Amino acid sequence: MTWPILTLTTDFGLADHYVGVMKGVILEICPRAQIVDISHQVTPFGIAEGAYLIAQSYRWFPKKTVHVAVVDPGVGSERRAILVEAAGQYFVGPDNGVFTIVMAQEKHKARVITNNRYFRRPVSRTFQGRDVFAPTGAHLAAGVPPSRLGKSWPAPITADMASPQVLHIDRFGNIVTNLRAADKRISLKIGRATISRVASHYAEMAPGQLFLIEGSSGYIEVSMNRGSAVERIGCRAGDMVQINRS
Amino acid sequence: MTWPILTLTTDFGLADHYVGVMKGVILEICPRAQIVDISHQVTPFGIAEGAYLIAQSYRWFPKKTVHVAVVDPGVGSERRAILVEAAGQYFVGPDNGVFTIVMAQEKHKARVITNNRYFRRPVSRTFQGRDVFAPTGAHLAAGVPPSRLGKSWPAPITADMASPQVLHIDRFGNIVTNLRAADKRISLKIGRATISRVASHYAEMAPGQLFLIEGSSGYIEVSMNRGSAVERIGCRAGDMVQINRS
Amino acid sequence: MTWPILTLTTDFGLADHYVGVMKGVILEICPRAQIVDISHQVTPFGIAEGAYLIAQSYRWFPKKTVHVAVVDPGVGSERRAILVEAAGQYFVGPDNGVFTIVMAQEKHKARVITNNRYFRRPVSRTFQGRDVFAPTGAHLAAGVPPSRLGKSWPAPITADMASPQVLHIDRFGNIVTNLRAADKRISLKIGRATISRVASHYAEMAPGQLFLIEGSSGYIEVSMNRGSAVERIGCRAGDMVQINRS
Repeated sequence: MTWPILTLTTDFGLADHYVGVMKGVILEICPRAQIVDISHQVTPFGIAEGAYLIAQSYRWFPKKTVHVAVVDPGVGSERRAILVEAAGQYFVGPDNGVFTIVMAQEKHKARVITNNRYFRRPVSRTFQGRDVFAPTGAHLAAGVPPSRLGKSWPAPITADMASPQVLHIDRFGNIVTNLRAADKRISLKIGRATISRVASHYAEMAPGQLFLIEGSSGYIEVSMNRGSAVERIGCRAGDMVQINRS
Repeated sequence: MTWPILTLTTDFGLADHYVGVMKGVILEICPRAQIVDISHQVTPFGIAEGAYLIAQSYRWFPKKTVHVAVVDPGVGSERRAILVEAAGQYFVGPDNGVFTIVMAQEKHKARVITNNRYFRRPVSRTFQGRDVFAPTGAHLAAGVPPSRLGKSWPAPITADMASPQVLHIDRFGNIVTNLRAADKRISLKIGRATISRVASHYAEMAPGQLFLIEGSSGYIEVSMNRGSAVERIGCRAGDMVQINRS
Repeated sequence: MTWPILTLTTDFGLADHYVGVMKGVILEICPRAQIVDISHQVTPFGIAEGAYLIAQSYRWFPKKTVHVAVVDPGVGSERRAILVEAAGQYFVGPDNGVFTIVMAQEKHKARVITNNRYFRRPVSRTFQGRDVFAPTGAHLAAGVPPSRLGKSWPAPITADMASPQVLHIDRFGNIVTNLRAADKRISLKIGRATISRVASHYAEMAPGQLFLIEGSSGYIEVSMNRGSAVERIGCRAGDMVQINRS
């Protein structure tokens, strides 16, 4: 007997009933599902941030895990729903770039989800998380094979990840960029602040000192020991970053 | 073997241990329960908002689901605990109106919960979520029949839902009213703002434009495409709404 | 067949993927685990607050429950990982005082966790919640005996709980102190405010009135009926409290 795992990443927040309703739909279809919240606090419509959070998470889950993403500025318009198979796992969500980083990192196969037999019907215009993504993901978790959901989709939409940018602000006020940590002789400019000190772990820096560190994310983060880098610098997800190499 | 579902709707927030403690109590009684959080961010003491969130959720859960609500300004006073059976599901909470919308929508039967055999004892004055509502709900989920909990209760307290009002502000800043969407030729006044444009989906409106839309809730909501209606208008749950028909 | 319970208490917040990743690691090791969030909103690096939240919670969980705590200002430095056995349950976390209150309340046995066979390797410097505490806790939940994890540890670090202080601000703005409720003839000074009225339950006080109450915590709390004590007084977790006895 298996306990399938299904994760959720959305911009719905936790004040509303939306996430709970998605879980009700999932559990009716797949009663033993272990449902794990990755985050429901993606910046509203923040596709790159959603892509980052999913890419940071999937490696730590077992094969066959189903990751459902609902970060969806285009709900109600004609954008497609997709399923991506990668790393032995499933990714279900809108075709808007939210799986860009996973697809860049892994050999993958995409399908456009067209089989409405696995939807909750009628499908509403405003809540496809409930009517399309949650039930499709739950049927996958319950064992429906991907080939039943729709045909191969050769060209999923991808988000721009080439421009240096702020991907995410974490709970401690660390500023996560999309820069990889290969180059140790680097300084970054974000807004008016320039940061050039590099640390290998938090405890070695004095409290209140801004520094660069390779976070557990594998990306360069701007941090402050026992303090909030974002409060000092004042930036947000999506802001551009300028690189200087010395 | 079944996996009973039990949902929680409270004004406890997630910073405290209260919700975790309720789950410990539930799992000791019903170890296989699938516990789903609807929301723990009901405006403190916001009975109408709690009633709204529960009413938005229950249809999406299977039969036999137990919905536990703890929005309870009268804790420590003499208000009753009730069980409502409706739509093949169970609703457990204080008798203060938090199930008003469910009861208006569904044929139902109410009981006053008096059998303290299913409570955690001693029952504290300040945390009946832990001592009364969670354990009673868990025993129901584990199969105790409703008739064991107490006698029929003919007159549950109901909250005023007739006055046009703001029920809830959602994560995106959408303002959910208690007005049904039948009338398309309507304008609403909330505070100083008058909103009369009507949209059928978000993507058709320009960014920054306020409009009315029938949300997935079935109620009229005031929304802004890629922006926050509540930041523009500045209102909160419980505020009155004025209706003009043209 | 058992459904082991594992709780999480961290300062990670819910906006990031950290908590979800810990759950992925746990479920791979212990697929049937019931994972319960106590709080992820411990004040960053707030060891006494974490100690309080865990101590408030464990009594309400069944024997064998595994409580994992990650409140860890010293991550990356050389502090130890420990396992505490108390009250028939397990407590896994950094050796920094986060189990101080549990250890003061219960007969206990501590071990230093040295067996890296149960870690996710390589162990990162910045995310030991994922690499050390979550997997060790999951193996305990799955049945690994404590003696496999490491040797007895006679001197776990403890946090200072003797000084009168604010332990925690709850969702309703109640100010939880570390003072026990034995003495009813007491007044407290926090910042510039002096509070000397004592109530036995919330409903007996007028709205807007500050008062002292023995909360469900067993500690003296400063509260306001239908209002926020912390908004009136303006304090935070860690602030000192002055006691006057009349």
